[in-house]
Amino acid sequence: LPANPSLLVGAGDDAAVLELTQRQGCVVTVDMLTEGVDFVLSQVSPRRVGRKSLAVNLSDLAAMAARPVTAVVALALPRIGGLELAKELYEGLIPLAEQYGIAIAGGDTNTWDGPLVISVTALGETTSHGPLKRSGAQPGDAIIVTGQFGGSILGHQFDFEPRVAEALALAANFALHAGIDVSDGLSLDLWRMAKESGCGAVIDLNKVPIAQAAVTLANSGDDGDTPLAHALADGEDFELILAVPPDAAERLLAEQPLACGCTRIGEFIAEPGLWQLDAARGRLPLVPRGFEHRMEK
Amino acid sequence: LPANPSLLVGAGDDAAVLELTQRQGCVVTVDMLTEGVDFVLSQVSPRRVGRKSLAVNLSDLAAMAARPVTAVVALALPRIGGLELAKELYEGLIPLAEQYGIAIAGGDTNTWDGPLVISVTALGETTSHGPLKRSGAQPGDAIIVTGQFGGSILGHQFDFEPRVAEALALAANFALHAGIDVSDGLSLDLWRMAKESGCGAVIDLNKVPIAQAAVTLANSGDDGDTPLAHALADGEDFELILAVPPDAAERLLAEQPLACGCTRIGEFIAEPGLWQLDAARGRLPLVPRGFEHRMEK
Repeated sequence: LPANPSLLVGAGDDAAVLELTQRQGCVVTVDMLTEGVDFVLSQVSPRRVGRKSLAVNLSDLAAMAARPVTAVVALALPRIGGLELAKELYEGLIPLAEQYGIAIAGGDTNTWDGPLVISVTALGETTSHGPLKRSGAQPGDAIIVTGQFGGSILGHQFDFEPRVAEALALAANFALHAGIDVSDGLSLDLWRMAKESGCGAVIDLNKVPIAQAAVTLANSGDDGDTPLAHALADGEDFELILAVPPDAAERLLAEQPLACGCTRIGEFIAEPGLWQLDAARGRLPLVPRGFEHRMEK
Repeated sequence: LPANPSLLVGAGDDAAVLELTQRQGCVVTVDMLTEGVDFVLSQVSPRRVGRKSLAVNLSDLAAMAARPVTAVVALALPRIGGLELAKELYEGLIPLAEQYGIAIAGGDTNTWDGPLVISVTALGETTSHGPLKRSGAQPGDAIIVTGQFGGSILGHQFDFEPRVAEALALAANFALHAGIDVSDGLSLDLWRMAKESGCGAVIDLNKVPIAQAAVTLANSGDDGDTPLAHALADGEDFELILAVPPDAAERLLAEQPLACGCTRIGEFIAEPGLWQLDAARGRLPLVPRGFEHRMEK
């Protein structure tokens, strides 16, 4: 593992010790990827899985407008071939850690007779602008998203760039009320954000930025879904949904400070629930769709 | 999850935000338990597994002489019965968290078709005495251990009390050079500690405090191991091995400040390796034994 100045004690001891540089809040998030659900090793290289295991956590830190500091990695490796697999996972993970200047502070490496499990916990620091919560959206706030949506299964789900720099830049220059990253689906995560904020959200479906991959996927025609349906429900876009008060939103959209683009797709409203704009009838209910873990008794 | 004043943002957002109360180092550790290796659900209640998943992390914080602050929990649950299982895991985990005043800051709950995996990451703070590393032992330091060793498989491996209070009390009152918690085996972990410190260790085998469970296990006679052999190699004792300079060691042993007891079992020496005291020949090599994860290519 590469050395890092923030690590007072690195990997190899009972725990790692790090120095948080400022007297800010310490942000912590964990994501576990499991073989068969989050990836299939016959279809994707371990490097991309390793990269993703850290990238999803960086996306969560971005959604809090936090600066990444460190991460620890817990692995359950199959007994046969586990060592080689672990090396390849780290070959994907470490370059991303270096890109963001974060320390891999250690971890816990296990072997067992089951499939691969990789659980990464990332720590970050809030900036002087504080943490960007899900629950701060207010009626009248613009719904602004970064990038495009849909079709992530064609590759973006592994190769996405977590919106860390984008979140920090926006939080430093614009009044943001709330934020979330889209992991389970644009419509589902927006609905959750509105619900946590005690309000509703209305989307202008014509404004949703649709990724080329969503078009490609729709044209392959397996399920008959339109590109828009993919954009609303596919998930793993790892783009940001932000609640931005009207004045700041206007300035943000005029300045377009991000290379990935920012789009206003609707507005938070007082009435709870998820809605779509309708030319004739004002608005209609929109069913939130996306990935949800299923459990049976 | 119970509320906790250290949590500025608790579970339910993209990440948790916590306030570290002092300007000390932030200590982080992760441990993953997997079904079939660390526990067998037909033999142990999920509550005890849940408790252990946090307790092993608290033991790591104790080994750093750190004060526990918070933890996050990542679960891979079997699809069938996963919800009930998760509830029972938390019924074991939460009371231990409350006992130590630490916040469960959230986590990541997944379902899949594999066995149960539970990965806990714990955060703590160093005290003004700094982190207690593995690597600080010096030749001449006494090897002092807490509690007794061996036979943890009979129950102690789940029901042990992490030596958090003990580590903080000792670090506050005595000059400690190094520390480790015994997870894999007294002789193996002592050997690792000596190796990390660039020195060796010699044990007086007559002084090793042997748990009653080690005697019971030896008497059951399955493998022919003596109680001492169990004490040296069984692991999961979650007691502390400390390197204490001679003067402090003498005072510590005279004062006996811990209810669990402190015992001097030997001394760190300049010559590398692990050794046993021998009345006739001075010292003899001692093979470090304990649990090691096996991997095959």
